[in-house]
Amino acid sequence: MMGEKKLPIALSNRHLHLSQEHIEILFGEGYELNKFKDLSQPGQFAAQEKVDLVGPKGTLKGVRVLGPARPNTQIEISLTDGFVLGVTPPVRDSGDVAGSPAVKIVGPKGEVQLKEGVLAASRHIHMHTDDAEKFGVEDKQRVKVRTTGERAVVFENVLVRVHPTFALEMHVDIDEGNAAGIKNGELVELITE
Amino acid sequence: MMGEKKLPIALSNRHLHLSQEHIEILFGEGYELNKFKDLSQPGQFAAQEKVDLVGPKGTLKGVRVLGPARPNTQIEISLTDGFVLGVTPPVRDSGDVAGSPAVKIVGPKGEVQLKEGVLAASRHIHMHTDDAEKFGVEDKQRVKVRTTGERAVVFENVLVRVHPTFALEMHVDIDEGNAAGIKNGELVELITE
Repeated sequence: MMGEKKLPIALSNRHLHLSQEHIEILFGEGYELNKFKDLSQPGQFAAQEKVDLVGPKGTLKGVRVLGPARPNTQIEISLTDGFVLGVTPPVRDSGDVAGSPAVKIVGPKGEVQLKEGVLAASRHIHMHTDDAEKFGVEDKQRVKVRTTGERAVVFENVLVRVHPTFALEMHVDIDEGNAAGIKNGELVELITE
Repeated sequence: MMGEKKLPIALSNRHLHLSQEHIEILFGEGYELNKFKDLSQPGQFAAQEKVDLVGPKGTLKGVRVLGPARPNTQIEISLTDGFVLGVTPPVRDSGDVAGSPAVKIVGPKGEVQLKEGVLAASRHIHMHTDDAEKFGVEDKQRVKVRTTGERAVVFENVLVRVHPTFALEMHVDIDEGNAAGIKNGELVELITE
């Protein structure tokens, strides 16, 4: 039955993950991120901290930092954001930053000039191991997802990530969410064919 | 054969159509729009003139006017643009402006406070009568269109407009173009099933 393959979707606004080294350059020695609110994925949170991103053509002010700190700094923006900054982020899976464009990060206590790290995150689904079994899909499989409504689309080439700590949710960026006319928490349909 | 149902796609950036009355308020008595360049649809052109759009939350500066003058002023923006202005444009077919949000238009010689007229244009295909016959579709039919590439999508609910003066082209807005990772002139596939 189709009803068994429904899952919630969420729109990811521009954000960044910071290394502890970069957190201390931007916010001060020994600084730790402060939680603003929990995100849907266990352990992940939106931090109170925001920074400015400065590109060759323009600036995005007040971009939210997500926590906890990660081994490598990574910035996730939409293609629309890229026009504002003057960089073209490649559409990549999280972590795959090699050769991606650079921007300058400006915090209250300092600045970081990146060498790379700006991506447009590939649309993807976080899935608990039990959900993957129920849906009959595997980690790293690519699936299709159908949305409903006036701007209905089928997103193809959607990456599935399966892990026992993940909560079931599809993530798209703001361009993709607007193109489909969807709202946070709306249900979409997984198509494996 | 699939190859017979290919057509070019174009990304429409934010723009507006103005009534002659509004042109004269914004640019001066007796003013006529000046052509910047022809558009793909015969007789339509991007004008040299630009205006600012002022919403309750923010301003979009330098928005392009398209010509020629129309009976009614209409502003076509993306949902992303709507966030900047602080209005939520309904997704509508061109001309269907009843009850849509209002903004203020600011030109070099005057201002117009609209009562309505801000839309996110429905994705649509302009099609010459001969193309419609070849593709086996009719005016006002809704079809699906598949794009290719890393961000491949199927756009559902695509309005077909057929007229002997139309040139074959699909139009989407910048959100939709970015969501699909497409560029102007790329070929997409019409699906009628």
